[in-house]
Amino acid sequence: MNKELAQARVFFESEALENFSRILRSKDYGKVAVLCDSNTQEFCLPAFLAALPELPSDKLEVLEIEPGEEQKSIEVLAQLWDAFGALNLDRNSLLVNLGGGVISDLGGFAAACYMRGIDFVNFPTSLLAMADASVGAKTGINFAGFKNRIGLFVEPIMVGILPAFLKSLAAEEMLSGWAEMLKHGLIADEEHYQDLIRRKPMADFIDAELLDRSVAIKASVVNRDQKEAGLRKVLNFGHTVGHALEAYYATQQNPISHGHAVALGMQVELSLSTVFAALKPQEAETITKELGGLYPFPDWDIEKEAFLKLMRGDKKNQGQQLRFTLLAACGRAVYDIAIPESDVWEHLQKFTGV
Amino acid sequence: MNKELAQARVFFESEALENFSRILRSKDYGKVAVLCDSNTQEFCLPAFLAALPELPSDKLEVLEIEPGEEQKSIEVLAQLWDAFGALNLDRNSLLVNLGGGVISDLGGFAAACYMRGIDFVNFPTSLLAMADASVGAKTGINFAGFKNRIGLFVEPIMVGILPAFLKSLAAEEMLSGWAEMLKHGLIADEEHYQDLIRRKPMADFIDAELLDRSVAIKASVVNRDQKEAGLRKVLNFGHTVGHALEAYYATQQNPISHGHAVALGMQVELSLSTVFAALKPQEAETITKELGGLYPFPDWDIEKEAFLKLMRGDKKNQGQQLRFTLLAACGRAVYDIAIPESDVWEHLQKFTGV
Repeated sequence: MNKELAQARVFFESEALENFSRILRSKDYGKVAVLCDSNTQEFCLPAFLAALPELPSDKLEVLEIEPGEEQKSIEVLAQLWDAFGALNLDRNSLLVNLGGGVISDLGGFAAACYMRGIDFVNFPTSLLAMADASVGAKTGINFAGFKNRIGLFVEPIMVGILPAFLKSLAAEEMLSGWAEMLKHGLIADEEHYQDLIRRKPMADFIDAELLDRSVAIKASVVNRDQKEAGLRKVLNFGHTVGHALEAYYATQQNPISHGHAVALGMQVELSLSTVFAALKPQEAETITKELGGLYPFPDWDIEKEAFLKLMRGDKKNQGQQLRFTLLAACGRAVYDIAIPESDVWEHLQKFTGV
Repeated sequence: MNKELAQARVFFESEALENFSRILRSKDYGKVAVLCDSNTQEFCLPAFLAALPELPSDKLEVLEIEPGEEQKSIEVLAQLWDAFGALNLDRNSLLVNLGGGVISDLGGFAAACYMRGIDFVNFPTSLLAMADASVGAKTGINFAGFKNRIGLFVEPIMVGILPAFLKSLAAEEMLSGWAEMLKHGLIADEEHYQDLIRRKPMADFIDAELLDRSVAIKASVVNRDQKEAGLRKVLNFGHTVGHALEAYYATQQNPISHGHAVALGMQVELSLSTVFAALKPQEAETITKELGGLYPFPDWDIEKEAFLKLMRGDKKNQGQQLRFTLLAACGRAVYDIAIPESDVWEHLQKFTGV
């Protein structure tokens, strides 16, 4: 993949549909399977199919799974592969992932490994998937209690973003994607952050232009570092603490959304940034307050050892050392900052302690 | 990957050990895990470790699985991923696949998907793995009764070939690898075929030079077609019928080796080549006799529908049509030849019919 490609593959609105039609005409797939969850099958699939008269019904198959992060399992993956076989998908088949990040992570990984790789395209339906998961080629499943432990960096042949799908989302889902967009601003583009924080995270205020800006920030980072060797780690801002919180609350039967967890993680990591990076305390306080207004900490205690164990399992760590992405200023990130566990726990206590 | 790489990554004898030592010094892996089966652990691992004083024992881990094709399953794959986690392998870890094709197929796939990809190297210990699986970047597992249904094209960072390992192999295993070497000659290099057919398939007659020639043929094909879009299909000579026979005999509790199955497949496809390609009947007869001497057909009946169903599941087919690689002459292959099932069955009957 080269510098142009990752961005060039993301198309919005009518261009997305036109480009997809062009691919269908030129590739002449024997089978086209659409992977949905029960929500996207109900709320997105009818409009999607209606917009694509090129798709002959005798080649079309629809695969439906339940919604939810727990579908990103090796068991559901194996069921998908069984279904691919039952539908006689071969190397000349296409998989269309119509859904949020669960669908594109699971479907992308399943397609990339089936017969050593068949084509797939993503039509993200959640804000998180549109603004974040649409770029970066990440696919995978959760395994042994760790998020995305098993997976691949692999590109869909195109990503089509239809903002109209946002209208079907619940407020909590909008907030989840919004957190990643705020993160894009915080790590790389202060103006984008300021633009976002003055808006409301609702479908009516989110247009292709705003999405495109988040996508462009992410693409510019990813294009310079495909496999997270260095720079790409800036995208992990909020995620080291955030992933651990997300996993922790899930084990406590009190799940919070991915974006909510990342927004909580960002608040802790903003605090760490005033000690371990050059972020001014005043600036940290302002942003923390803005984030905290949208994303409050839940009122539950956190058990220290369980939390730290989850954080240690993070893919970003080397050996036993915790590495963080922090902010030097609003719009400027630094990465690979080693921080002792005790300091992370101490800063987390500012938000969850009594 | 570029044209140079696939070949440059294969090293023989002392160069293999030196290059591996160089990689260990330069990459400074936190952990190095060696994947063996119980045979290679006994017969190859001690000599391998003795030759590598650079490998500090505190970073070294050994993972052992049972030998055999049935290990290429999703269950064993999941066990491996569990083991990787238990050993705290992270992105700065290396997996060394020390074994035959089962080890490199399974281990390569496991490494490529763990944390979205960690480094792995292959030290093949069987003739089949040295002469064939060492090049081509194929990894994977069997699934739902189909060979290599799930997998990836992914390169090890190096392949080290130590022909001394061949001394521990049984005659049947030698014959299995020998069949793929014969195939390399048949599809691309008549001289190589003639050289091989005049030798005995025993360790004493197989040196680095002979292996290098097979490796070079395969690498030259693979380098021109990484993902089996076209030319690479020549490597499938003997495999469309061969894979189906291999799977069929396995279901009959009468397993034969992969190479033996391919050699049987080549005999059937030589016969087909006289009808559907330009192979002269005289030439086909000579080669078939030579192959049949080393690789006789088993004395078991084949059930038509079961066999044809297995052949239809082959990854090389497009839609419902069977596609074959055939010979136009000794040393020259043609591919994508559509052949009706009834003809395949008829030609197979020449070898198995009563």
